Amino acid sequence: MFAIINGPNLNLLGKREPEIYGHDRFETILRQIRETFPADPIEYFQSNHEGEIIDKIHHLGYENPECDGIIINPGAYSHYSFAIADAISSVPVPVVEVHISNIMGREEFRHQSVTAPSCVGMITGLGLHGYLSAVAYLKTRKK
Amino acid sequence: MFAIINGPNLNLLGKREPEIYGHDRFETILRQIRETFPADPIEYFQSNHEGEIIDKIHHLGYENPECDGIIINPGAYSHYSFAIADAISSVPVPVVEVHISNIMGREEFRHQSVTAPSCVGMITGLGLHGYLSAVAYLKTRKK
Amino acid sequence: MFAIINGPNLNLLGKREPEIYGHDRFETILRQIRETFPADPIEYFQSNHEGEIIDKIHHLGYENPECDGIIINPGAYSHYSFAIADAISSVPVPVVEVHISNIMGREEFRHQSVTAPSCVGMITGLGLHGYLSAVAYLKTRKK
Amino acid sequence: MFAIINGPNLNLLGKREPEIYGHDRFETILRQIRETFPADPIEYFQSNHEGEIIDKIHHLGYENPECDGIIINPGAYSHYSFAIADAISSVPVPVVEVHISNIMGREEFRHQSVTAPSCVGMITGLGLHGYLSAVAYLKTRKK
Amino acid sequence: MFAIINGPNLNLLGKREPEIYGHDRFETILRQIRETFPADPIEYFQSNHEGEIIDKIHHLGYENPECDGIIINPGAYSHYSFAIADAISSVPVPVVEVHISNIMGREEFRHQSVTAPSCVGMITGLGLHGYLSAVAYLKTRKK
Amino acid sequence: MFAIINGPNLNLLGKREPEIYGHDRFETILRQIRETFPADPIEYFQSNHEGEIIDKIHHLGYENPECDGIIINPGAYSHYSFAIADAISSVPVPVVEVHISNIMGREEFRHQSVTAPSCVGMITGLGLHGYLSAVAYLKTRKK
Amino acid sequence: MFAIINGPNLNLLGKREPEIYGHDRFETILRQIRETFPADPIEYFQSNHEGEIIDKIHHLGYENPECDGIIINPGAYSHYSFAIADAISSVPVPVVEVHISNIMGREEFRHQSVTAPSCVGMITGLGLHGYLSAVAYLKTRKK
Amino acid sequence: MFAIINGPNLNLLGKREPEIYGHDRFETILRQIRETFPADPIEYFQSNHEGEIIDKIHHLGYENPECDGIIINPGAYSHYSFAIADAISSVPVPVVEVHISNIMGREEFRHQSVTAPSCVGMITGLGLHGYLSAVAYLKTRKK
Amino acid sequence: MFAIINGPNLNLLGKREPEIYGHDRFETILRQIRETFPADPIEYFQSNHEGEIIDKIHHLGYENPECDGIIINPGAYSHYSFAIADAISSVPVPVVEVHISNIMGREEFRHQSVTAPSCVGMITGLGLHGYLSAVAYLKTRKK
Amino acid sequence: MFAIINGPNLNLLGKREPEIYGHDRFETILRQIRETFPADPIEYFQSNHEGEIIDKIHHLGYENPECDGIIINPGAYSHYSFAIADAISSVPVPVVEVHISNIMGREEFRHQSVTAPSCVGMITGLGLHGYLSAVAYLKTRKK
Amino acid sequence: MFAIINGPNLNLLGKREPEIYGHDRFETILRQIRETFPADPIEYFQSNHEGEIIDKIHHLGYENPECDGIIINPGAYSHYSFAIADAISSVPVPVVEVHISNIMGREEFRHQSVTAPSCVGMITGLGLHGYLSAVAYLKTRKK
Amino acid sequence: MFAIINGPNLNLLGKREPEIYGHDRFETILRQIRETFPADPIEYFQSNHEGEIIDKIHHLGYENPECDGIIINPGAYSHYSFAIADAISSVPVPVVEVHISNIMGREEFRHQSVTAPSCVGMITGLGLHGYLSAVAYLKTRKK
Repeated sequence: MFAIINGPNLNLLGKREPEIYGHDRFETILRQIRETFPADPIEYFQSNHEGEIIDKIHHLGYENPECDGIIINPGAYSHYSFAIADAISSVPVPVVEVHISNIMGREEFRHQSVTAPSCVGMITGLGLHGYLSAVAYLKTRKK
Repeated sequence: MFAIINGPNLNLLGKREPEIYGHDRFETILRQIRETFPADPIEYFQSNHEGEIIDKIHHLGYENPECDGIIINPGAYSHYSFAIADAISSVPVPVVEVHISNIMGREEFRHQSVTAPSCVGMITGLGLHGYLSAVAYLKTRKK
Repeated sequence: MFAIINGPNLNLLGKREPEIYGHDRFETILRQIRETFPADPIEYFQSNHEGEIIDKIHHLGYENPECDGIIINPGAYSHYSFAIADAISSVPVPVVEVHISNIMGREEFRHQSVTAPSCVGMITGLGLHGYLSAVAYLKTRKK
Repeated sequence: MFAIINGPNLNLLGKREPEIYGHDRFETILRQIRETFPADPIEYFQSNHEGEIIDKIHHLGYENPECDGIIINPGAYSHYSFAIADAISSVPVPVVEVHISNIMGREEFRHQSVTAPSCVGMITGLGLHGYLSAVAYLKTRKK
Repeated sequence: MFAIINGPNLNLLGKREPEIYGHDRFETILRQIRETFPADPIEYFQSNHEGEIIDKIHHLGYENPECDGIIINPGAYSHYSFAIADAISSVPVPVVEVHISNIMGREEFRHQSVTAPSCVGMITGLGLHGYLSAVAYLKTRKK
Repeated sequence: MFAIINGPNLNLLGKREPEIYGHDRFETILRQIRETFPADPIEYFQSNHEGEIIDKIHHLGYENPECDGIIINPGAYSHYSFAIADAISSVPVPVVEVHISNIMGREEFRHQSVTAPSCVGMITGLGLHGYLSAVAYLKTRKK
Repeated sequence: MFAIINGPNLNLLGKREPEIYGHDRFETILRQIRETFPADPIEYFQSNHEGEIIDKIHHLGYENPECDGIIINPGAYSHYSFAIADAISSVPVPVVEVHISNIMGREEFRHQSVTAPSCVGMITGLGLHGYLSAVAYLKTRKK
Repeated sequence: MFAIINGPNLNLLGKREPEIYGHDRFETILRQIRETFPADPIEYFQSNHEGEIIDKIHHLGYENPECDGIIINPGAYSHYSFAIADAISSVPVPVVEVHISNIMGREEFRHQSVTAPSCVGMITGLGLHGYLSAVAYLKTRKK
Repeated sequence: MFAIINGPNLNLLGKREPEIYGHDRFETILRQIRETFPADPIEYFQSNHEGEIIDKIHHLGYENPECDGIIINPGAYSHYSFAIADAISSVPVPVVEVHISNIMGREEFRHQSVTAPSCVGMITGLGLHGYLSAVAYLKTRKK
Repeated sequence: MFAIINGPNLNLLGKREPEIYGHDRFETILRQIRETFPADPIEYFQSNHEGEIIDKIHHLGYENPECDGIIINPGAYSHYSFAIADAISSVPVPVVEVHISNIMGREEFRHQSVTAPSCVGMITGLGLHGYLSAVAYLKTRKK
Repeated sequence: MFAIINGPNLNLLGKREPEIYGHDRFETILRQIRETFPADPIEYFQSNHEGEIIDKIHHLGYENPECDGIIINPGAYSHYSFAIADAISSVPVPVVEVHISNIMGREEFRHQSVTAPSCVGMITGLGLHGYLSAVAYLKTRKK
Repeated sequence: MFAIINGPNLNLLGKREPEIYGHDRFETILRQIRETFPADPIEYFQSNHEGEIIDKIHHLGYENPECDGIIINPGAYSHYSFAIADAISSVPVPVVEVHISNIMGREEFRHQSVTAPSCVGMITGLGLHGYLSAVAYLKTRKK
């Protein structure tokens, strides 16, 4: 089983600044992921609250023995939340960071991710497809 | 209708460091604003939680068609919350940032507001009067 | 009595880069301010010369006992004129800084105002309306 | 009465990265503190939510007249939460910051605590013993 | 048709620092990619020469009308070769940057990629699997 | 018609630090330019006053319909006068910046020109010949 | 046996800037420590000389087999003496750094301690009580 | 005789990002230069390889006694190739740096040229005309 | 003959921030200097205009053969006026910089003087006495 | 009585780098000072040892009631000895810093004095004459 | 067997800037090394091409089992070629970096070597003798 | 005659952190140097005191006419002792800096040596052999 955690403002996907984030709502990609990997349950969680994201990571890491990996898009928290970074480092489950837009090609402050060093790796700029790639990668680690 | 959002520690106005923030409680200015603009309902919201502030901005921006503008004092979140900045950028409602004290004349870290670039503008140092000015300005955009 | 000081290039308002500074000439807002506060004489002064701006501040602060407050838009001098900042600190009259565009959301060098720490406060991004707000605020101090 | 506030990821003590944080759970030290200072009630609070920590500081500072001091380990929030720093500055109760590991000897970003300047002082690197020292110190102020 | 360009020192994969880059030679992953996408010819190119990499990008972008996308691992050139970045910006073909190790979690100088802003996106830390993900993504753009 | 504006200390050319600025007075080059382009009137203006330089740019840009281009050597103002930079951006006439010595090869603070981004381009280090090149270039735009 | 090493200007305690360092002379706290831990001999050493402090650390670390720990207040040397930092790293005895005032809340240059990373931990801002806490902590390691 | 050296990506002139670099191919300007200065042979060299550019500079400087000057557009190498800078410093022939676009007005990293300090001077932003100006200037030195 | 040049805001001496600049007007010290050195005419000049200060330096340096030295207090221009610095470097007369308050012990931006490197030396913090010392020093050079 | 303290390498005056420090030995200026102020005993002390300089400052400040002021040239210690700076702040005697050469016009690291903020003021670049000026100034405070 | 690799511009030794690099050609020192260590074959390689230097390091490290050590002078590549640094880290052969001039005492950008951390050590400023020292050292490792 | 000066903590060689500094005591290399160069007396001096090192350099430079060169390992003083740097610059004897470990590959603060620019050159990372190389080099200058 894999979990997807979306951070702040990602509940607005499809409505918010579509020239950056595209016109699709996240439900579309979620359905596509579930169809692509029918054998793997995919849990989905979104929150604008830093603390809830930390709580969720803890729960997945220590209280859900089924969890084989986490895909996280920490949104803007990527750029300053050392607390989420520590949460990721604290759990024995592999975590992959995903960004929809190419954060390396936007404003200066988005070039740095303080959470990425705690993750296995990062996918940025591949749009919603990035989530699909992350699940595919985590499945290879599971085998 | 306009909404005022006050961020962390602003619930202590009147008690907290009065040499910086003055002796008035926020209720006083709120009453004064409502008296000055009797035709415009003013919603008030205060929270110390970054996530709740983001949720509120989303709600006002997408689910309250009456909302003509937001006045926000993000308190110390102004200096690092790219998540609130993104929330402001995500909504189709004009937002004005207000600070009671003159943040440009205090400690170095307060000189920079990461949320202000997502706002229409910023008023700083005019005390509680700044909220009044912000409402007055937003009314001119509404016309 | 209040004085408005406009710094370099603000004589071109209405001609210069209208996508940033709008299409109105400053005379329009000046007339509007005078109509709004008919009891308060408003003196207007514009100069592209740093030294003349300093001279004017000194004059208003020490030789014009009628002056109840100054509204200053130091234009680009805001970003490096420590001499104007010192002039503002030197006079016993309250000064409010105004910027037409939102300087926090433009080029990096415009994010910092070296003159703002010497002022009571700053209004930025509210267009020409910012001058009106500044006068309104200074009147509350006068009472 | 003294209160201990533990910030994000500290609920995982004993499980999380034991080579850095040791093998003991926090309950062990809490019991030891209570045994050492039997006359002083010790309240314990842990949260991963920045907003809840601020709320708690406010409550202890203004609504609990028994509170003689706060011991806080803000975890990773130490490195960026100006909002918690402001909360500490806002209350009339002495606060001591504690870190289990020696933050000065770890990654660059951990060398700076933005919350420590608002505290009376800081203890870092003494392991769980740091909490004990902080209570002992606060008792000397109470006398 | 897709092209994979590997930059400096990547000819040593499997020999060089296996604790960072793994024990597989690149031929292994190349075979796997070709098996996964049998309908898409995959051209492979490796060079330690900055100039040859630029030449190759130009050739693929302007003289090979079959080319539907480029996967590039610029190795250490990522951190300073503005010339390769300009080459990527100069061609009308989508380019995805891949790094085997998680560059965000290694030495400071590796956190910045000057070539990534010219690419569509970047995949880092997923090992050799990153190349597979990049091809899969580029195929979705081709459709 | 073209105008040449020389900034502070350039009235001392030929007297001042000849090992850097050469032994020629500016009159020499001015005569040479006029001989080279007899059909084009060349107006010359020098001032040590930032405000006068701004006034002059405004005048040339808005009140002299004959003016086809400005050649400016802002001297040391290049390194900090955002006010002159704004003046150049404010006028609809092409401006070319010229420096006699190679500012890129002198003291650190001379490497940056804050006025150059507002100009069409910059010529540095070609001695007094730089003015000649600038006029020649501006003529090509006029055609 | 424990040793306390006080660095430069700490011989003036009680005389020097009492609003920062308090009115007590160090003898007072020394007596109190000895009374609190009667079983542990406490050696005391103060010097304004960087080299003498290094010599002392070497002596305690290699030639005094009784020494169970060192408490050091390097005074201003904390902020630049990499030589003392190296001395601390060189000895097989645990060292705790103590500062009387809260160095995190004073001038910028005092926020950084280059010696603290070589120590087990640091106590800052607890006044002279910090020495007592350090001895208490070192005793727990000895057991 | 003069030599023109064009660096990386300049072989794409006319194809590449025409909104920045214009629609002309370099052949056009080369023909124009040769027509303007029929008495001076003009050698042309373009390479994307840093090493080849260095080799060329050496050859022109030491093995071609006819060479009276070099015009170089190092492209993106300007911003980091200290090796090309050293090559320019190593030869007894005057070198002028040319950039087609105004590098002072583009991305931050393009504001600095590490090769310009080794040159006689730099022309930036005058489009392809800059090459013409550089040749004209070098002819004045030759006389 | 010596000249004293006072820069911006120094016309307010005695009125302006007396806790920093003292209660004396400049006339007092001028009279004292003239009494102390009756054989040396002392010219006095004050201006808030950067350009006028530059003009004055030029005049003293090139058109007043009697001038044996200049004492300058550039006020806040010290911190950014490279134009005044260049003017000082341009004249063949020794210049000594004076500051009334100790600029090294005030705000960060006052620690740096960009004009001082062009002067023979600087005296700071000795109050109005600094001018007296500067004249005394310049007399020793004259002999 | 006044004391002069010279720091490291100043014992070599007259031998060391005379193009920077002049040809005179310090004895010459000392004799001259004593002749100029015959009523004031002048104590002289030179040391290359940071600790000895601190000891001396303490002694003069607390154990020599005759001492009316200290003139210190901390040599290179000016640029990093926060310990000497603290010693100066610790004593109730006015201290003036003197540098023989103009430190503002030499290498970058010499532009900053960390000891000057603790002094009353600083004289730099006036050669050995600076000591004379400092004594003259301190006498005015004594009166 | 040992190999010496000289980077860009070092082919000009003896011709290029002799006041910095001396008058000897490299052949002289090569002959001297071979005479000093007659039992050890010395291979010599010079290139201005970053890629060729990387290829050579790979070849020596993996395909020449005789190679006991490499002496490299990466010239200006030392200051930015992370690709050469990675190549050095990739090979199982000890590498010593040599610079003829003292890079620590030249321009700021030469103070940092990005390749030195991948080497065993560095010798700088000993002129051509540095190569001799490096061979002598590598022989001691071989034994 | 040559002198070797070892700075702080180097008296602990062989005892201190042997994984960095090796297991040999300095006596071993000293004996080896003396055997290698039997004709040259080698004086040895070690001190942890910055002032004593400066005194020693002065003595060797001015009072020991036999001294043909100094080999100095300033230990951690290399990274901040501008006073030792000035001492080295002050003496007419060539000085070579030696570090046992490769300071370029250790912590950030060790990458910079402020003393090296005053030396002829630096040898780092060659272990105790570095001293031998330095003596050998200095002998070549003596000839």
